[in-house]
Amino acid sequence: MKLWDKGNTEVSKDIENYTVGRDRELDLLLARFDVYGSMAHTTMLESIDLLTSAELTEVHRELKVILGIIEAGDFVIEDGIEDVHSQVELMLTRKLGDTGKKIHSGRSRNDQVLVDLRLFIRDEIKTIADLVTELFTTLNDLSKQHKDVLIPGYTHLQVAMPSSFGLWFGAYAESLTDDMHLLQAAYKVTNQNPLGSGAGYGSSFPLDRQMTTDLLGFDDLSYNVVYAQMSRGKVEKTVAFAMNSIASTLARMSMDICLYNSQNFGFLELPAEMTTGSSIMPHKKNPDVFELIRAKMNKLQSLSTEISLITTNLPSGYHRDMQTIKETFLPAFYELKSTLEIAIFAMKNIKVKDGIIQDEKYKDLFSVEEVNRLVLQGVPFRDAYIQVGQAIQEGSDKLSKEVKHTHLGSIGDPANDQIEAKLKTVLAGFGFEKAEEALKALMG
Amino acid sequence: MKLWDKGNTEVSKDIENYTVGRDRELDLLLARFDVYGSMAHTTMLESIDLLTSAELTEVHRELKVILGIIEAGDFVIEDGIEDVHSQVELMLTRKLGDTGKKIHSGRSRNDQVLVDLRLFIRDEIKTIADLVTELFTTLNDLSKQHKDVLIPGYTHLQVAMPSSFGLWFGAYAESLTDDMHLLQAAYKVTNQNPLGSGAGYGSSFPLDRQMTTDLLGFDDLSYNVVYAQMSRGKVEKTVAFAMNSIASTLARMSMDICLYNSQNFGFLELPAEMTTGSSIMPHKKNPDVFELIRAKMNKLQSLSTEISLITTNLPSGYHRDMQTIKETFLPAFYELKSTLEIAIFAMKNIKVKDGIIQDEKYKDLFSVEEVNRLVLQGVPFRDAYIQVGQAIQEGSDKLSKEVKHTHLGSIGDPANDQIEAKLKTVLAGFGFEKAEEALKALMG
Amino acid sequence: MKLWDKGNTEVSKDIENYTVGRDRELDLLLARFDVYGSMAHTTMLESIDLLTSAELTEVHRELKVILGIIEAGDFVIEDGIEDVHSQVELMLTRKLGDTGKKIHSGRSRNDQVLVDLRLFIRDEIKTIADLVTELFTTLNDLSKQHKDVLIPGYTHLQVAMPSSFGLWFGAYAESLTDDMHLLQAAYKVTNQNPLGSGAGYGSSFPLDRQMTTDLLGFDDLSYNVVYAQMSRGKVEKTVAFAMNSIASTLARMSMDICLYNSQNFGFLELPAEMTTGSSIMPHKKNPDVFELIRAKMNKLQSLSTEISLITTNLPSGYHRDMQTIKETFLPAFYELKSTLEIAIFAMKNIKVKDGIIQDEKYKDLFSVEEVNRLVLQGVPFRDAYIQVGQAIQEGSDKLSKEVKHTHLGSIGDPANDQIEAKLKTVLAGFGFEKAEEALKALMG
Amino acid sequence: MKLWDKGNTEVSKDIENYTVGRDRELDLLLARFDVYGSMAHTTMLESIDLLTSAELTEVHRELKVILGIIEAGDFVIEDGIEDVHSQVELMLTRKLGDTGKKIHSGRSRNDQVLVDLRLFIRDEIKTIADLVTELFTTLNDLSKQHKDVLIPGYTHLQVAMPSSFGLWFGAYAESLTDDMHLLQAAYKVTNQNPLGSGAGYGSSFPLDRQMTTDLLGFDDLSYNVVYAQMSRGKVEKTVAFAMNSIASTLARMSMDICLYNSQNFGFLELPAEMTTGSSIMPHKKNPDVFELIRAKMNKLQSLSTEISLITTNLPSGYHRDMQTIKETFLPAFYELKSTLEIAIFAMKNIKVKDGIIQDEKYKDLFSVEEVNRLVLQGVPFRDAYIQVGQAIQEGSDKLSKEVKHTHLGSIGDPANDQIEAKLKTVLAGFGFEKAEEALKALMG
Repeated sequence: MKLWDKGNTEVSKDIENYTVGRDRELDLLLARFDVYGSMAHTTMLESIDLLTSAELTEVHRELKVILGIIEAGDFVIEDGIEDVHSQVELMLTRKLGDTGKKIHSGRSRNDQVLVDLRLFIRDEIKTIADLVTELFTTLNDLSKQHKDVLIPGYTHLQVAMPSSFGLWFGAYAESLTDDMHLLQAAYKVTNQNPLGSGAGYGSSFPLDRQMTTDLLGFDDLSYNVVYAQMSRGKVEKTVAFAMNSIASTLARMSMDICLYNSQNFGFLELPAEMTTGSSIMPHKKNPDVFELIRAKMNKLQSLSTEISLITTNLPSGYHRDMQTIKETFLPAFYELKSTLEIAIFAMKNIKVKDGIIQDEKYKDLFSVEEVNRLVLQGVPFRDAYIQVGQAIQEGSDKLSKEVKHTHLGSIGDPANDQIEAKLKTVLAGFGFEKAEEALKALMG
Repeated sequence: MKLWDKGNTEVSKDIENYTVGRDRELDLLLARFDVYGSMAHTTMLESIDLLTSAELTEVHRELKVILGIIEAGDFVIEDGIEDVHSQVELMLTRKLGDTGKKIHSGRSRNDQVLVDLRLFIRDEIKTIADLVTELFTTLNDLSKQHKDVLIPGYTHLQVAMPSSFGLWFGAYAESLTDDMHLLQAAYKVTNQNPLGSGAGYGSSFPLDRQMTTDLLGFDDLSYNVVYAQMSRGKVEKTVAFAMNSIASTLARMSMDICLYNSQNFGFLELPAEMTTGSSIMPHKKNPDVFELIRAKMNKLQSLSTEISLITTNLPSGYHRDMQTIKETFLPAFYELKSTLEIAIFAMKNIKVKDGIIQDEKYKDLFSVEEVNRLVLQGVPFRDAYIQVGQAIQEGSDKLSKEVKHTHLGSIGDPANDQIEAKLKTVLAGFGFEKAEEALKALMG
Repeated sequence: MKLWDKGNTEVSKDIENYTVGRDRELDLLLARFDVYGSMAHTTMLESIDLLTSAELTEVHRELKVILGIIEAGDFVIEDGIEDVHSQVELMLTRKLGDTGKKIHSGRSRNDQVLVDLRLFIRDEIKTIADLVTELFTTLNDLSKQHKDVLIPGYTHLQVAMPSSFGLWFGAYAESLTDDMHLLQAAYKVTNQNPLGSGAGYGSSFPLDRQMTTDLLGFDDLSYNVVYAQMSRGKVEKTVAFAMNSIASTLARMSMDICLYNSQNFGFLELPAEMTTGSSIMPHKKNPDVFELIRAKMNKLQSLSTEISLITTNLPSGYHRDMQTIKETFLPAFYELKSTLEIAIFAMKNIKVKDGIIQDEKYKDLFSVEEVNRLVLQGVPFRDAYIQVGQAIQEGSDKLSKEVKHTHLGSIGDPANDQIEAKLKTVLAGFGFEKAEEALKALMG
Repeated sequence: MKLWDKGNTEVSKDIENYTVGRDRELDLLLARFDVYGSMAHTTMLESIDLLTSAELTEVHRELKVILGIIEAGDFVIEDGIEDVHSQVELMLTRKLGDTGKKIHSGRSRNDQVLVDLRLFIRDEIKTIADLVTELFTTLNDLSKQHKDVLIPGYTHLQVAMPSSFGLWFGAYAESLTDDMHLLQAAYKVTNQNPLGSGAGYGSSFPLDRQMTTDLLGFDDLSYNVVYAQMSRGKVEKTVAFAMNSIASTLARMSMDICLYNSQNFGFLELPAEMTTGSSIMPHKKNPDVFELIRAKMNKLQSLSTEISLITTNLPSGYHRDMQTIKETFLPAFYELKSTLEIAIFAMKNIKVKDGIIQDEKYKDLFSVEEVNRLVLQGVPFRDAYIQVGQAIQEGSDKLSKEVKHTHLGSIGDPANDQIEAKLKTVLAGFGFEKAEEALKALMG
């Protein structure tokens, strides 16, 4: 059964397979949100007399039954049923007959998909924000814990100046904090109600779009119905940008770890259960976990390009092309969430080495300290710089290894509390509670 | 003269040309902000006794002179001078001797570039927000003005349902509104003080980073010095995402216009001065302006990929690679701003045609209206759908062309005021004034 | 069982799930080629006395049994077995005991994966070349068939000059011809033997790499073992470029079709079984097939970027990151092949409309013909151009609709035979036979 | 003066600036090739009686004068002249009056740009192939020279097995060899004559396209005129793929060098004149050259994405968007060529260190050798693997550091001659001579 099957032409089987693609599999992720959308839409239909109060009661009762099936993990899209929306409607119709069919009034598949996707994304963003917060806390704690363990700081991959594990762990914590700004932008763009935009041109029924907005806990509406439809692809790309940002932080951290775990650095050690071996080299302990975090997160950075390539130069109005976005967009959430979980687990188990900077190859690390010491004695900076530089070239450097950095954000004060406060401020701007409370109220 | 020229080796000329690249040309964009940064840094140096009060007065006086030269358009980076930072320091030193050299204390070229870039970006974001607002207003006004001019709405590029110029112009206005969320995220990520992070590992001088933060009007600090350095490339990518979003809106609008301007649509007309001809076809009036907006804005969407490709898998710590980002990043602002200006100009001059939907090829536009009419008479939706579908196939369709859309965001109510209110709410979240007032106070 | 399981540490289950990913599922595509590789490797091992003649006979007998299982579709990677290579080795060991284990001598998982991938890619490229040839023939035939059906030619989406379906179909045929150059480059880069490169540093066994090269029908060797390993990702990217090129041709053709199928053009018609309907608009016949070809093929253009993002800035030597490439690279072949099949089917069924250019809106199409007519009468081109241009502006154009294009490649002579000859020349350069004959000989 | 300026409307100045963009500057690169194209086109026009023999002689004489001006570096596009094509025509007309105007017969700006671009690209590809060959020779020589200098080979950035500078240098040499396959594909796609395709729909003049093909030394024609136009963007993208491949090789090599030059590896040393210092750290010798090679070459990998984003979903037929491609495409040749030159220079001066593998941290390098030794004594591989693995874990490893790799492509035989032969074979397939000889003959 297809919604648009008019009974008089048969779509070639090959074409059907090609066009349906992975929709039926991916749509399971949307099932729960399809029920929420239908709950709100039907409540609104009743308010404008397109459904009787008795019909509404029946429909809501059955939708809750379906939600129960979904939450129990028993929901399936039956053979021959095109997508989650058709399946839900079929289940309703089996129970309620014509009443089940009525819920499609004033709604198109297009705005139904839009609202499902937005509710789904909203929910996923919440989960991602939680996981990022947990990883942040792990990193910030590690920063405090290893505040005084010095490591060489590099520029150009050359030994440069003293750094510390306090700074290194904390840097990635603060990076996550900044990533949250893009995630919040994605949330704001997502959390607007597209329901009522129909196929992109609205409806001649007198829909009450503010009511569904409130029922579903949206912050605002995607008002203009042409824009609501045009947002397909745009919302996904905005979310992809936010994912890209988090992914970049994770990928770069993993690159550092793979390098620092190399025998040539030896700054970090991974517990045996987090390494893998080689099929031919018996001595190997490979950091596959962090290589895969790196690779998956680098790969995730192409998602926005993929969406751009699909949507670029499509005129306004719905195109079937949009469905193709789902095939990489929906799985991206799983990739990011599972990577965050693994990263949290892995970082909690990583081991930091001590005494690193005692190695002879790091002897020039403290040259700037020496320059600054001379400056404080009254030597102009440029002159001190030349003087120390010449001393190093002549091999006459006997630099003190004492670190006196005290300013905000430096080795002596990695500003963990301020960074944590900054994260809390960003998180407060999302307003996740409103959405959660609305859905709770909607489902009674 | 190069800052790092230790006088005893000669860098090959070819290599120098290759490594300097376009820095000297692009750096002119940063000159103004380099002065601001030095004003703040030296004020702070004086507060921690690394500069005397008299020296500070001299330095500030000369920096203001340099700012005057910059604002008059007379600033040049002299031959043999590597970049804007060296040029400013050279000008100071010529006037003030050793005092001029002292301003480099507690600062590295790395955090100097970081702070210059952030001040520059902050300023550009403000300009972009202003231009977007102006384009928004133009589009929103056109939406109100042409509220009742109907056009066909398409899905799958097939004639679908009635739409209007009110909706079409308004859709792009609302799209710009959503774009502002990403621009604001970019602003928040940018508007944090990196000064004091030195080469990425801070300083052993007791710098007062909160003071420079306040003096420069930053919202907050990039606290962790390792993170402050790591933000290079990340800030640019975040800004590129925001540009991408605005660019997508402009590109899609231009695609629509090029299509609607084709003889096969004929919805829009461009005034003669906005079209170009052909070297061989005397009848041509080509919409080059909108094709170039489309192309430039589509091209701009690759900027974030370019930055990703440059920065991916670089371990933490500065790498010279970062300088390469400037070569496409800095000109991108000009591309976007000039495109916004041209778009504003062009949209103010575009002409809308009337009576479009009377054409025979749009006769099926009103089929959904007919379905809905039957539904309101009590026919279940799916049955009404089949009934109208059969009538159309049999050619028996005599559909009324009356449009009765009344709901929020539909043809009858394009929600221009609500969308404008939404834009104002986002704009209020930037907090541009703080930055502007701080700079005004800093420069006296 | 894992090859590198040394029995004394337990890899965390979560980490294992994360690291294994979709390898077990995707590896099924490689099973057949893993057998070929092992056939050749063991023949060589026997030649250097690392396997006895009797052992070789046994091993080959069992490998052929396994190939039979694979070809029957009965091959499975058992629970707990990491990948296809382990599964094949396990099946051999069950039958042959220690002899089964010996086949791993002088080979690493790394070069085993490399050779499997290359044999797989080689085979897929052959299939793609065949499908492209079939689509070429379809398009070239359509070009001949509709040689004289005129359509408007557009520049800037503006009606420009007369064109024809002969040219339009033929253009995409010739585009495919050029695409074959990149496919051939991909084939040449792929069809070199990496076996013997071990984990990227070769082997201390005296391997005869020329023998396995000949046995597997490779054109040449990836000689340098460090390079052989480094080619991972590079080969895939080269193939992705070739796919990108074919994909671009298909996507653009689909964009034309979606446009030409719109009521505003009406140049082409799709048979009912190739269109889909709308859930709310009873009159819709949507060209979903071509929209999906367009979308899938545009999406495929991001594959090379994805590979670049995964591999960029990884130092030489294997990294686990490389495995991640498989997850989108292997399915890309299915996407491309199924799309080519659907495109062939769809193009064979597309219907061309007649009398298109009679429409009033195409009246200026023949202005250049008029200019050229004046030129042939002796009027200089620029003067003729101005004269006709003024006539059109004054509405005095009465242009003849006779088309006199006769030159090679024009409406009168679309050069179908020459383009076909060009395709044949490129195809001849692949040398597919050598590979096929070698595998046939290898498997007896 | 604009070719399409019909004298009766004034294009807004702002719009003109926006639409002209950087065309006038970039077009200088095309000037020489514009002359070649006009030489061939006019010879052909004379053959079909659209130019008299006397006119042809005059035109050719003046075109050669213009070529002289171009080769002397004195050619300029005058103020108010739109592009190189208009400038050449203007110079001819000044000298020859109406005869100068006649050369535009049977040609459009579109196919003129196409042929100029292809001649330019063809020439650049030749230069790139020469530079790649020189870099190849440098690397292959270094491979031979340092054949026996051992270095650790890494997998997963972990110390794995012995490698050598012979292998390392040679790996990048062989990588360049494979890159040439894509460059050749780009050459083949480029080296086809588009002249005669006009604005994309051919000409009603009886053009002899085979004649211009022969005169300009093209291998074949872009026959179909619609396809010839459609190739705009496609040719550029194909070239971008080839550049991407070379760029990837250079970027990865530079990543290795930056890492190997780090104090933590210390495998390579750069001469002082190839390093730069730090503004605050007097001891720094930074490998900026290789960082910039890396960054520029990574950036170059986004070029094909940029072209895809500009061209995706544009229907067939010329669009002004295509001009935008020139702005990054033309400068890309300079970027690649200058990078190749610098890389050749830098590699000739790089210094290799000795005795690297004596360091304690590389002690496990020879574990596979030990496993293989046991295997040759009759121990099954898997058992030998476990035995050596346990010995290493217990610290009882006393591994011999003798390397016995002898097979083709291994430490003992890096196959430099075979790789060089492979390069020569690919190079022979380009057929550069044909093009060069044709142009020589054309210009007399």
